[in-house]
Amino acid sequence: MTSTPDQIDPGLRATWTAGGGAHLPADALAWLRERTGLRPSATPVTEVAVPESALPEAARAAFAAIVGPEHVLVLGDDRLGRAGGLSYLDLLGWRGGEVVVPDAVLRPADPGQVQSLIESCVEHDVGLVPFGGGTSVVGGVKALRAGKSAVVVLDLTRLDKLVALDPVSRVAVLQAGVTGPEAERMLGASGHTLGHFPQSFERATIGGFAATRSSGQASAGYGRFEAMVERLRVATPRGEWRLGVAPASAAGPDLRHLVVGSEGAFGVITEVALRVRREPAARRYEGFVLDGWAAGTDAVRRLAQDGGRGTVVRLSDPQETEVGFALKGGWKTGVVRRYLRARGVAEPCLLVLGWEGRDKADLAARRRATLRALRGLPKVALGTPVGEAWRHGRFAGPRQRDALMEVGVCVETLETATRWSRLDELREAVRTALFDSLTTAERTPVVACHISHSYETGASLYFTVLVPRSADPVGQWTAAKRAACEAIAGVGTISHHHAVGVDHAPYLAEEIGELGVDVLRAVKRELDPTGVLNPGKLVGDA
Amino acid sequence: MTSTPDQIDPGLRATWTAGGGAHLPADALAWLRERTGLRPSATPVTEVAVPESALPEAARAAFAAIVGPEHVLVLGDDRLGRAGGLSYLDLLGWRGGEVVVPDAVLRPADPGQVQSLIESCVEHDVGLVPFGGGTSVVGGVKALRAGKSAVVVLDLTRLDKLVALDPVSRVAVLQAGVTGPEAERMLGASGHTLGHFPQSFERATIGGFAATRSSGQASAGYGRFEAMVERLRVATPRGEWRLGVAPASAAGPDLRHLVVGSEGAFGVITEVALRVRREPAARRYEGFVLDGWAAGTDAVRRLAQDGGRGTVVRLSDPQETEVGFALKGGWKTGVVRRYLRARGVAEPCLLVLGWEGRDKADLAARRRATLRALRGLPKVALGTPVGEAWRHGRFAGPRQRDALMEVGVCVETLETATRWSRLDELREAVRTALFDSLTTAERTPVVACHISHSYETGASLYFTVLVPRSADPVGQWTAAKRAACEAIAGVGTISHHHAVGVDHAPYLAEEIGELGVDVLRAVKRELDPTGVLNPGKLVGDA
Repeated sequence: MTSTPDQIDPGLRATWTAGGGAHLPADALAWLRERTGLRPSATPVTEVAVPESALPEAARAAFAAIVGPEHVLVLGDDRLGRAGGLSYLDLLGWRGGEVVVPDAVLRPADPGQVQSLIESCVEHDVGLVPFGGGTSVVGGVKALRAGKSAVVVLDLTRLDKLVALDPVSRVAVLQAGVTGPEAERMLGASGHTLGHFPQSFERATIGGFAATRSSGQASAGYGRFEAMVERLRVATPRGEWRLGVAPASAAGPDLRHLVVGSEGAFGVITEVALRVRREPAARRYEGFVLDGWAAGTDAVRRLAQDGGRGTVVRLSDPQETEVGFALKGGWKTGVVRRYLRARGVAEPCLLVLGWEGRDKADLAARRRATLRALRGLPKVALGTPVGEAWRHGRFAGPRQRDALMEVGVCVETLETATRWSRLDELREAVRTALFDSLTTAERTPVVACHISHSYETGASLYFTVLVPRSADPVGQWTAAKRAACEAIAGVGTISHHHAVGVDHAPYLAEEIGELGVDVLRAVKRELDPTGVLNPGKLVGDA
Repeated sequence: MTSTPDQIDPGLRATWTAGGGAHLPADALAWLRERTGLRPSATPVTEVAVPESALPEAARAAFAAIVGPEHVLVLGDDRLGRAGGLSYLDLLGWRGGEVVVPDAVLRPADPGQVQSLIESCVEHDVGLVPFGGGTSVVGGVKALRAGKSAVVVLDLTRLDKLVALDPVSRVAVLQAGVTGPEAERMLGASGHTLGHFPQSFERATIGGFAATRSSGQASAGYGRFEAMVERLRVATPRGEWRLGVAPASAAGPDLRHLVVGSEGAFGVITEVALRVRREPAARRYEGFVLDGWAAGTDAVRRLAQDGGRGTVVRLSDPQETEVGFALKGGWKTGVVRRYLRARGVAEPCLLVLGWEGRDKADLAARRRATLRALRGLPKVALGTPVGEAWRHGRFAGPRQRDALMEVGVCVETLETATRWSRLDELREAVRTALFDSLTTAERTPVVACHISHSYETGASLYFTVLVPRSADPVGQWTAAKRAACEAIAGVGTISHHHAVGVDHAPYLAEEIGELGVDVLRAVKRELDPTGVLNPGKLVGDA
């Protein structure tokens, strides 16, 4: 990987998230009008109101003594730059003036300063929100007060170092604020890769990946982020906590799994020792089209259960396949559709397969194993152009979303996972819930879905929703999201890789039981007795 | 798998564990005398004293009302049959009369009865020790009172059912009391396998595998037991707790990992939904010899990091290679040694590799990948006879131990794991600690070691110790074990797959921090406020 880091001045983030730059082809707009009822509409962007900082002077002085006064930011733009995440509702807030703004931003230089800041927050009873790339789409970095008189954002981006690399064990220790591209750049210098490429890759950080149990688009080949975690260094109100001494252990419960996914509510992850791999010398991505969702899931399940699945396996349902081509301007022209019709495909489902290998021979062997596993399954090969187009555009989703919002589209994603035998039931339930909630006389939603993470026993489902924005956009999406969550709870997980944050907290008990929530609260009480850490997240306002 | 279940009447367990049957070849005895200073000695077996049951009548009646009076066992032999596990010290106890005997044995029929019994134990303040196959080697099933006036054993072997099988998702729900062979028999009926074959396989149970984070000899191919766990059903003093809805989730910390490894201290696992696989149609096991530990670990590391490692990878160090041949009578004759010398091998390290495949072609492809990865590494192929001999004898360790104890040998195993870059340091440290502790003018220990679980970032180390028993056998081994644990703590995990129990509890804080122990205690207080569950285990006498 030689991606360039995309480190935007956080003070300019409001502009970026509200701002243009991305454009839709004319065909795509026409398709949206025909398919959803979208009408041309201007999208006003109003000023965002920034309240005065409520941080007591004594706390400010204490923080300044730890990190230096230049790293305690209290100006409106700086605070606004770390206010909230990047969900559709967050972006609506940026456009419409409703943003929860923290009282200050603290920029520690190292794990020791993080530890001192936490202890200082306890002393001054100030809430503290860990913040890396700020890419949460579930309210995970919202600066909620939750009973505290003030709340500060702990900006971790100065913790940007590769602390150690053990090439024999293939373990790298990275600080929490290292972004995806920076991690790849630093590891690439010695021929290694982490292999973690979620859609948030360009801006999200190592600490955030760990805190939210992230999963990357190459999870078939590299595993979920939690599978990469060897050791953790965590700052807590009770002192530093270090976990992990061996790849695997039977020394009681694996407490690394209690920290991974804890969303900053139990402690702030400052360093993570991660399994790394040798950078692949050869890559190949190809597109295929299968006829219908059933054939598509059959292919993905075969690969997951019987081996040979390579590095990336990503299946779009017919709706997402349509959206994908349409937003690139290719669908409306009918070229793709005609090509596939001529080959007898009634309901095209795009399957992107990617292989990475030590060398060309290794790559070829992996590809052969995949194709052998899919033998006998009718499919149309679209070759490497489609595969490579996906690979090059795979982090573009957020920018495309900006462009869609510009023209008046309500656009958001949500995701879940379940076992194979319930996957179709779950997909239907979520689709129905979203349709029922969003369809009106004037507006028809497009609900598209893909599988991008598959396991021997099941798979994830990732939904993208497009619908013309209503006069009450917050109410429109809030109701739809609630309907989807209610359809999911009990059948699938309330989140496969977006985490709980604020948005999914009401559904957590359905998934882990009231006992599970009680256990999380007991752990929080033990580690964070006064509740300064990421107030209101994960277990709500306990 | 078509192994026959080996369900011994628990009442006869004392006889079995103390009993003969296994014999050592004359060559092996001669080797032991020469190598360790062992002298012929009779091993007296004295009566084990069984104290009166201290179970209050009210509690007995309450238990009987739940499971029926015939399933509340209070006779001495029945209670003795579930007293303690199978560590060397346990076995010494059986021979010398010092056994901690529970006050009763309860035999529930289903998860509902388990739940009721736990609630009844809370009501009567009676400690409860979950008991499956009773194969713990760390004191995990010792019937400690830890402040309670009485303690009962919860014998789970009547929970012996395959509850459900989902062939599409390849998930099977098994009750906690199902033994390894029974699981394979029931799953085999539909062409599936669990693939979990620890040395305790013949007697240990699903619940025990989960409660102790077990790892089987085929972990290279099938993964550790925790990797198979999809869902858990747990009975706790606070009610039933069900966990797991998807293969993977970001709905907060993964609490399944808090239950797996909790050793009955947080709840009693009554059912586990497990990932299963298609039973392999083809198997092949081969032996190879590499020259020296460094060459051997290089081979295992290559396979773990660069792929192609198949189903079983097991490397013996030179000492274990010697022991393995010697106890079979082959070493002393010099045949093997001469064969290897003739091929230039100075320090033979046995490497057993096993492959399982869907069919012969799949198997051949897997084997080719392994041999390709090992290309260029000097090795002597011993072929399938050695591989198959290992496979057929792989559960015989406990029986061999009985035979060695018969002739006066102190014989025990212990294990750990760490990352590759510290593996040699850890092996040396443990060897030195054991040698220093056990060597006397009359006695020389044999300390043998193997790797049977390897990961991309590190591997396990499993030590077998043989030394002539001293006049104070308990003191002899207690000191040696303490020395080994102190050498391990901080460098490797205090247990890779044997769990914490009583024996490793003093070292737990070194591994997970005082904060980690506090967190476990907080969880225990939340789920088991009066401390009836497996008193004194995992977190000691909190």
